Amino acid sequence: MQLHIREKTAAVLEATGQYRKLGRAVDIFLITLILTNVVAIVLESERDLAKVYHHYFLTLELVSVAIFAVEYLLRFWCCVDKLDYRHLDIPNWKKRLKYLISPLAIIDLIAILPTILMAFITFDLRFLRVIRLLRIFKLTRYSRAMQLLLAAFKEESSSLLAAFFIMSVVLIMASCGIYLIEHDVQPDKFGSIPKAMWWAMATLTTVGYGDVVPITPLGQFFGGLITLLSMGMVAIPTGLLASSFADQMRKRRDAFNEAVLHALVDGDVDKSERAHLEALRIELGLSQLEANQAIKLMSSQRVHHMYCRHCGKKL
Amino acid sequence: MQLHIREKTAAVLEATGQYRKLGRAVDIFLITLILTNVVAIVLESERDLAKVYHHYFLTLELVSVAIFAVEYLLRFWCCVDKLDYRHLDIPNWKKRLKYLISPLAIIDLIAILPTILMAFITFDLRFLRVIRLLRIFKLTRYSRAMQLLLAAFKEESSSLLAAFFIMSVVLIMASCGIYLIEHDVQPDKFGSIPKAMWWAMATLTTVGYGDVVPITPLGQFFGGLITLLSMGMVAIPTGLLASSFADQMRKRRDAFNEAVLHALVDGDVDKSERAHLEALRIELGLSQLEANQAIKLMSSQRVHHMYCRHCGKKL
Amino acid sequence: MQLHIREKTAAVLEATGQYRKLGRAVDIFLITLILTNVVAIVLESERDLAKVYHHYFLTLELVSVAIFAVEYLLRFWCCVDKLDYRHLDIPNWKKRLKYLISPLAIIDLIAILPTILMAFITFDLRFLRVIRLLRIFKLTRYSRAMQLLLAAFKEESSSLLAAFFIMSVVLIMASCGIYLIEHDVQPDKFGSIPKAMWWAMATLTTVGYGDVVPITPLGQFFGGLITLLSMGMVAIPTGLLASSFADQMRKRRDAFNEAVLHALVDGDVDKSERAHLEALRIELGLSQLEANQAIKLMSSQRVHHMYCRHCGKKL
Amino acid sequence: MQLHIREKTAAVLEATGQYRKLGRAVDIFLITLILTNVVAIVLESERDLAKVYHHYFLTLELVSVAIFAVEYLLRFWCCVDKLDYRHLDIPNWKKRLKYLISPLAIIDLIAILPTILMAFITFDLRFLRVIRLLRIFKLTRYSRAMQLLLAAFKEESSSLLAAFFIMSVVLIMASCGIYLIEHDVQPDKFGSIPKAMWWAMATLTTVGYGDVVPITPLGQFFGGLITLLSMGMVAIPTGLLASSFADQMRKRRDAFNEAVLHALVDGDVDKSERAHLEALRIELGLSQLEANQAIKLMSSQRVHHMYCRHCGKKL
Repeated sequence: MQLHIREKTAAVLEATGQYRKLGRAVDIFLITLILTNVVAIVLESERDLAKVYHHYFLTLELVSVAIFAVEYLLRFWCCVDKLDYRHLDIPNWKKRLKYLISPLAIIDLIAILPTILMAFITFDLRFLRVIRLLRIFKLTRYSRAMQLLLAAFKEESSSLLAAFFIMSVVLIMASCGIYLIEHDVQPDKFGSIPKAMWWAMATLTTVGYGDVVPITPLGQFFGGLITLLSMGMVAIPTGLLASSFADQMRKRRDAFNEAVLHALVDGDVDKSERAHLEALRIELGLSQLEANQAIKLMSSQRVHHMYCRHCGKKL
Repeated sequence: MQLHIREKTAAVLEATGQYRKLGRAVDIFLITLILTNVVAIVLESERDLAKVYHHYFLTLELVSVAIFAVEYLLRFWCCVDKLDYRHLDIPNWKKRLKYLISPLAIIDLIAILPTILMAFITFDLRFLRVIRLLRIFKLTRYSRAMQLLLAAFKEESSSLLAAFFIMSVVLIMASCGIYLIEHDVQPDKFGSIPKAMWWAMATLTTVGYGDVVPITPLGQFFGGLITLLSMGMVAIPTGLLASSFADQMRKRRDAFNEAVLHALVDGDVDKSERAHLEALRIELGLSQLEANQAIKLMSSQRVHHMYCRHCGKKL
Repeated sequence: MQLHIREKTAAVLEATGQYRKLGRAVDIFLITLILTNVVAIVLESERDLAKVYHHYFLTLELVSVAIFAVEYLLRFWCCVDKLDYRHLDIPNWKKRLKYLISPLAIIDLIAILPTILMAFITFDLRFLRVIRLLRIFKLTRYSRAMQLLLAAFKEESSSLLAAFFIMSVVLIMASCGIYLIEHDVQPDKFGSIPKAMWWAMATLTTVGYGDVVPITPLGQFFGGLITLLSMGMVAIPTGLLASSFADQMRKRRDAFNEAVLHALVDGDVDKSERAHLEALRIELGLSQLEANQAIKLMSSQRVHHMYCRHCGKKL
Repeated sequence: MQLHIREKTAAVLEATGQYRKLGRAVDIFLITLILTNVVAIVLESERDLAKVYHHYFLTLELVSVAIFAVEYLLRFWCCVDKLDYRHLDIPNWKKRLKYLISPLAIIDLIAILPTILMAFITFDLRFLRVIRLLRIFKLTRYSRAMQLLLAAFKEESSSLLAAFFIMSVVLIMASCGIYLIEHDVQPDKFGSIPKAMWWAMATLTTVGYGDVVPITPLGQFFGGLITLLSMGMVAIPTGLLASSFADQMRKRRDAFNEAVLHALVDGDVDKSERAHLEALRIELGLSQLEANQAIKLMSSQRVHHMYCRHCGKKL
């Protein structure tokens, strides 16, 4: 029964159902392997280490790519039984195509491609070696909290783009101002607007390397104004994200509270409702304490608000 | 029918009504032209590029200015039929004057003026060339999100001014302190309070170039205190903006909720109400998901909470 | 009638009652004088300017101090008729004493003291000259928004102190770590923990001068960890202030809403209630728009929520 | 009665009950001693001071360690009578073991261990000397606000970890990019990915030392992109903490409001209820003003809003 095995594999790879535990073990193994790879590639860039432990690095690389390739093929093979795809009403080959072009599948491909290419082509080996570091993106599959963070970025994308636009305008104005003021005195550092941008960028982001600084009094006055503006530039994205994170937290809490309210319609929270709330709590990333408080508060509000203290009837 | 054509032109330039699509195309063309101009002016400041491609830069400049000039004249010509001005009860020449001194019209004028001036006057050509970069402000016309950001700045203007005032006081105190401590040891760097301000500014904004640093133990102790203060200086505008952004988000949500409440007065949200809410949702920049949740939540709250205390009936 | 004149003077200096306009003019004159003084003192520290314009600086100084002295004496003379003190049930000499040790009076004294001292003593003249810059604190009297900002700092003072304590602990740990690692290699820069603190302070506040940096691999690894920590160090005060500002905004809004609710008890907002709300709005620093929206929203909520749609009675 | 003395000692060390005042005095003495120790150890690292005042440093150290040792033994001896442990239903030796491995007890041990070790072993004395600075952690016992701050960190730990993960990915990508671009031109500074990380870390945290900077045009372009990313990197933890602090503030307020609601069930807040609310207010760190406002607001809301829908009576 090939189908059966494929379903099992899908369950293991997704860590669902009865294969949850095995799936977790596989996940942890893969996470460890990815991290080991990243550390190895970083260390391999040290020429001395690369020479001495060349053999170990190569072995690790080959074994890793083999495992990642098997993982890629397995995922491709059983993607038709994935939780998200199982109930789609499209033929299997369309599911497979859909999977092939999904971001996670592409990341998985990128993780094995460089080494395979290195076997065939021989242009800039160093570039290919380093590109293997993209392997680290495979970890996105495993981090829930990061997906929430990325959601906050996405939600604020239009505001962040506007902030980026303001930043660009200020950057261009700063570069062109300092270019006009300083390019005669320091032609090697502020000789053109693109060159002046290096200073403007380091200043507006408050990085401030100090390798390039204005030296004329007027340039320093103008530079001082730009450093003041830099505080605003840094404040905008921070403020946007802070407000967005606060908003997301509120939304998650509201969603949970609504569920509690719903469960409380019949007067109390029974066992199945409690299980449902617990699942929701985990999904929303709320703490146990917070969830209990919410349930307690809303129950007590029912008692205080929703029954008359004179006639005792439900309001 | 000259009037008719003028009205059409106004509709195209504002991208409203039946000329919405054509208007959008014109917008995109103008945005592309502005960005091309900015890139060209930045690159032209590289002397080598300016020499080799002198002809191309000149052609682009002349064509661009011609187009911007036509745009400016067209906008001036048909401004009396603008959506905002159409129903004003003032003579046309007053509308035109009103338009001429509006910020967007002034920006449009600044975009073409330098090149026209360069044809007549011949003083500092480089300055005029770079000033053409102000053309980038023409983009403000097209960015909704940026207008929202600027609104947040405006709303917090009094607090931000106060923050700026605190910053100024701290800046002057820091400069005068470091001047007293270091001006004997490093007269070239801290020889006067204005000179010391360069260090103070770079430090208080956490830019920290490092081209000028205190070297005496007392100076370093004082400098250390100022670096600590810098964290507060950066925290104030960031905190103000974060709180302001959060507040604006809340206001938009409240405005939407009020509209939902209004639509729910008769018990449910009918089709025309839904269309109205959708338009409002887009205007307020809320996500589809959020809007649906708000509608759902408020509907369910109606069911759970509202009964009359006199007749006991459902509200 | 000496008393009468004293009362008038108090009214002018506080810009209240019928002397509001005259008082404002006096305020603006004093603010201008203070700012002129600050600019003059800053410029005077430039030796060249000080020599050439010595006479002008001296004249300005003498005139300013004379005016500030008169202001100080007038304020002291009529402080017993101040709005805050008028109804206190204590003898006049106690009021005067109370005024003398109030922060604003001390700042006023500090503004004139250095010049008076310079006439008598002749030790470090430069120090006394620069100390005159403290005159800028006289401006606090005139800025409402700054007082609100300072209130936010005050409210969060215990949290900010805790943040400062965490910062101190991290600072000491970072200094002692880098001292252990680098003091053999760079004894002139990391020769003792106090010296190492200069690096630690510049790093933890993200100022990063770069005049002192670790150069050993272990030192750079440790330094990298500290740069990571610096993000947390900067995030704490910013987060605290952002949350505190948001909280203050909410409180002011709540106070306004409560007042609106109170005004709406009898069904609508009459003229005297509107005047009262307007005064409150200005005091709380809310925008006109926001206030109107709050009134409109709460009125409509009354209509929607507070009357039964079946029997029409007030809920 | 040995037990009696032990209970008394526990009460003094915890500053509870009738020994509150004595306990406070002991606390203040210990805090002063800790701070004196930290200052002494920092100063001792200055070789000149260490030589001249060697005797004083040694005396302070021996006395301090003796006191801390006595404190440690006393705390260990009477830990079975601690407020938290008194009512635990486990034998005393288990309580003692539990105490021994509690964080605060371990910190207390670390505070005395280095000096005791120095008496026996004689390897790197300097390291042991500096490690005594960990003594500063003893202060955590005394700061309530810091425990609240740490709670905020803990609550956001999963989000902060995700932020740290994003940071790591960006860090690795930045290091590997700049390594590929610059390692041929500046092999001493960007010769391997670990070396390049020093630059990437200083840039992404906006510290920006400037000791290592890209010099090729492509490197500067890439570096500019990274400085832009740095703003996002700094914004994430700041935004998370800001939102978390705001959330904690809201929770504390909610907890207080719930208590007020509970007290208001019988119509007003009597004396014992007021005392209870006051204790809660202090525990939650709310200001007097805020608490009073909450009580006032909730009382008035009761009057305005709450009537039964069945019998129409006031609730």
